Amino acid sequence: MDFQRMPSHFASPYALRQAIRAGDFAANTSGQAPGFVQCNLAILPRDWAMDFLQFCQANPKPCPLVAVSDQPGNPLLAAAGEDVDIRTDLPRYRIWQNGALTEEVSDISAHWRDDLVTFLIGCSFSFEEALVADGLEIRNVSEGVNVPMYNTNLACTPAGRFHGNMVVSMRPFVPRDAIRMIQICSRFPSVHGAPVHFGDPQAIGINNIDTPDYGDAVTIKPDEVPVFTACGVTPQAAIMQAKPDFCITHSPGCMLVTDIPNSKLAIL
Amino acid sequence: MDFQRMPSHFASPYALRQAIRAGDFAANTSGQAPGFVQCNLAILPRDWAMDFLQFCQANPKPCPLVAVSDQPGNPLLAAAGEDVDIRTDLPRYRIWQNGALTEEVSDISAHWRDDLVTFLIGCSFSFEEALVADGLEIRNVSEGVNVPMYNTNLACTPAGRFHGNMVVSMRPFVPRDAIRMIQICSRFPSVHGAPVHFGDPQAIGINNIDTPDYGDAVTIKPDEVPVFTACGVTPQAAIMQAKPDFCITHSPGCMLVTDIPNSKLAIL
Repeated sequence: MDFQRMPSHFASPYALRQAIRAGDFAANTSGQAPGFVQCNLAILPRDWAMDFLQFCQANPKPCPLVAVSDQPGNPLLAAAGEDVDIRTDLPRYRIWQNGALTEEVSDISAHWRDDLVTFLIGCSFSFEEALVADGLEIRNVSEGVNVPMYNTNLACTPAGRFHGNMVVSMRPFVPRDAIRMIQICSRFPSVHGAPVHFGDPQAIGINNIDTPDYGDAVTIKPDEVPVFTACGVTPQAAIMQAKPDFCITHSPGCMLVTDIPNSKLAIL
Repeated sequence: MDFQRMPSHFASPYALRQAIRAGDFAANTSGQAPGFVQCNLAILPRDWAMDFLQFCQANPKPCPLVAVSDQPGNPLLAAAGEDVDIRTDLPRYRIWQNGALTEEVSDISAHWRDDLVTFLIGCSFSFEEALVADGLEIRNVSEGVNVPMYNTNLACTPAGRFHGNMVVSMRPFVPRDAIRMIQICSRFPSVHGAPVHFGDPQAIGINNIDTPDYGDAVTIKPDEVPVFTACGVTPQAAIMQAKPDFCITHSPGCMLVTDIPNSKLAIL
């Protein structure tokens, strides 16, 4: 990676994906191609795919599906954008075997198989953009850190071999802004939709708000309440628990950037 | 009033209004003609009406206008329903002079003037019905009391001679239900819309949640948060403060029952 050659910002998802494919961009995709949907990635063998599809269907808030392969083995995802090749168009991938991380790579062509099914799952970047556009402050954005995420005691609906509790992200707001946040996020069910809880963390099994299970802690001011949203880490946690013999995910922060405008996800 | 003759329940707004007009029904309208919009009433002389219209326009959450007279002096409100005569179709009215309550009557025909303008303002009954239909418990309904209402430190936008702070109603919910309540109420901007606050009462100037300024206290369970919604008492309070020389309002709980289905108020 020659950082001298690396542009700091791509406006077009297509240009960004081409640069990733050519090895010219290998960083986090956060902030790139603003206005376009970024997705969490899960790739599973056909043998596991049906169970996982049912799990996502049964748990749409933590596992909102934006797109799925049209057939096993096809690495192209026209539904996600022009010339999208899931083997090369993310900056970084994780390879898992029997629930254990075995490798982190920038290209999965050598791992591709005819029975693999790709799942693209919505990501909070889309609704964060809508909140910022409305003038709300997103604390993890203003503090320049990853959003704090927590394991909860909220059980997902089990499906086949997949089960587990919901993982949530947390953003603090004063109540008036929390009400507006609920309205805006309700318009975006395919990126987790309305929050699942606000206020007392212990009510959903979070014992210490200052020590997130993933991501970074953020400041909660005295007049603010923590607002908890279902998180795309949930399906990854369920996969790790089910331990499929083979699986590929994106590396944290290295998403598939699609050609779908965020505004297209709004149901209202 | 012959209570032997008084039916306990009217299904049709028209039949209810005719019974009120005939003197056969003089009770609170709560629970009558379910499914139809009930309205707060304010009648002001033309000289005051423009200021009041501007005040409502500037403060749509506490003062959502459902209908206004087509011209001063016209007591008929076709927009509200078949044969609606505002002089006779409410069970009870209050007459105010220079900000003081001078009389409570069941017919205002003798007080009618050619310069009077009628304002119908949305009422929480409509959104409460939508919440109950969704399976939420409304505490003031389940405890059989009036909703608790509080003066706040939230200033309305002044207009002409009208100004004052917002009055809010309060309903307790667990956070998950509060989120659903915010979604449902957002669909009904003409009956106060989304709440204005939840949680800490002192943040909006309410010092004691157990002693409402109007209505009755309700139980707040340990896992619940109070949710505060702009209330139709606000415009009445602003009128009392402005002290117009003449004014007519409904008596508390004795609303105009219109032919407008509650569902017609939903914007989504």
